[in-house]
Amino acid sequence: MEKLYIIKIGGNIINDEEKLRQFLLNISTIKARKIIVHGGGKLVDQLAAKLGVEQQMIDGRRVTNAETLELATMVYAGLISKKIVAVLQSHLANAIGLCGADNNCIKAKKRVNAQYDFGYVGDIVEDGINTKFISYLLEDSIIPVFSSITHNNKGQLYNTNADTLASTLAIAMAEKYEVQLNYCFEKKGVLQNLNDENSVIPSITISEYQDLFKNEIVSKGMIPKLDNAFAAIRKGVKSVIISHADDIINIIGENKKMGTSLTAF
Amino acid sequence: MEKLYIIKIGGNIINDEEKLRQFLLNISTIKARKIIVHGGGKLVDQLAAKLGVEQQMIDGRRVTNAETLELATMVYAGLISKKIVAVLQSHLANAIGLCGADNNCIKAKKRVNAQYDFGYVGDIVEDGINTKFISYLLEDSIIPVFSSITHNNKGQLYNTNADTLASTLAIAMAEKYEVQLNYCFEKKGVLQNLNDENSVIPSITISEYQDLFKNEIVSKGMIPKLDNAFAAIRKGVKSVIISHADDIINIIGENKKMGTSLTAF
Repeated sequence: MEKLYIIKIGGNIINDEEKLRQFLLNISTIKARKIIVHGGGKLVDQLAAKLGVEQQMIDGRRVTNAETLELATMVYAGLISKKIVAVLQSHLANAIGLCGADNNCIKAKKRVNAQYDFGYVGDIVEDGINTKFISYLLEDSIIPVFSSITHNNKGQLYNTNADTLASTLAIAMAEKYEVQLNYCFEKKGVLQNLNDENSVIPSITISEYQDLFKNEIVSKGMIPKLDNAFAAIRKGVKSVIISHADDIINIIGENKKMGTSLTAF
Repeated sequence: MEKLYIIKIGGNIINDEEKLRQFLLNISTIKARKIIVHGGGKLVDQLAAKLGVEQQMIDGRRVTNAETLELATMVYAGLISKKIVAVLQSHLANAIGLCGADNNCIKAKKRVNAQYDFGYVGDIVEDGINTKFISYLLEDSIIPVFSSITHNNKGQLYNTNADTLASTLAIAMAEKYEVQLNYCFEKKGVLQNLNDENSVIPSITISEYQDLFKNEIVSKGMIPKLDNAFAAIRKGVKSVIISHADDIINIIGENKKMGTSLTAF
């Protein structure tokens, strides 16, 4: 099977124009097939504050009211998506910015939670990925750039967690490609000790993760990312690497061992 | 040659959620191949006012400063584009929201004007349309939905006049399709008398337009639209129809004569 890299970029890169440009320049030099997944960083919060749109959080998760969904659609699927595409084009890396509604690429349904209503938050449905169109783009050497906005095919857009979107995409594409999922963020990997930037755990298997989790070695913020990662691995994704965004070129381009590599065994 | 409809929708429909939904429902019932082109209506002005981003106008044309370009990219290529796509999908009309940077669909260069600097305003370059990809989408029964944001292939996005974008697209696609360009707006057509909604001029040829222009019968606001329209006709577009948005279903779906039809002779 051909290799496919699905690269999720976090808020830290997106918030910093210079970092984003450098990251995209790096990405453009990688010849292998790739998909980029992004959220929107802090820009939605900043816009919401300026416009007086109140933000409600439940257990650290954003409640997406109608106005916030509009802001997220503007920022993620508009500004950030098109900026990324324009910069990639300038490096002769052909790209296309898509959200889940485009060509019905990613179908979701409203999150149902007995306790809370998270508003316009969508969870991707079973078989919700248009792998046929995404494959067509990849075969034509076009980089699909996905913002984390999805839809329900009934006219409603949703805000979807970008980490989950990346892992769901990875699972769906694993039927046709040997998929490596790369979570790029501002730390060098999963840290043994949050205060020591150099305490990167080089690799974690599923059983090791259960130990780390039990012993509370992984930080709370990493748990959703790791849960997503291992869900992907259980469903056919070859490997997941969590690393600093600056290291992506070494990891993919030169196949160096950096960051934290997650595997089944 | 197969028929292709390029349908430009104006601010008046975009500003009104209900009108937009009805319009898109109408569009979805038309089986022929079609492209939608849209700007952003008043939402950019409203956002700019709320955020304190100053808007400068020269001769009735907006100067696009860096902040306004960001707002336009958010609103046109994000919110409005994805809303249109999601609503079309709900009517089982497959669609994809694109700006000029996506898959290098529409290439532009900064407008050069000896007198004024219009900022990030882009004019589409010769051979700037990716007709191959657009044709692929059309052949696959996907409706391309273009927002009026373009790029220069060097990392810069531009704001481009949506009427001009529609006519330039029409000219490029006329090599492969029999193109009808439809400008949909809030009046029933080109009016003989601006104060009489029913004084629609049913048809105008190029030579008749020159007379109307000389005798100042067409209103100032219509001139750019008509100039664009006749430029398209001179370059191979079969016909241009300027009509009320509500009449599109009768014009395309039932081939009724409504609005103002522009032709070469």
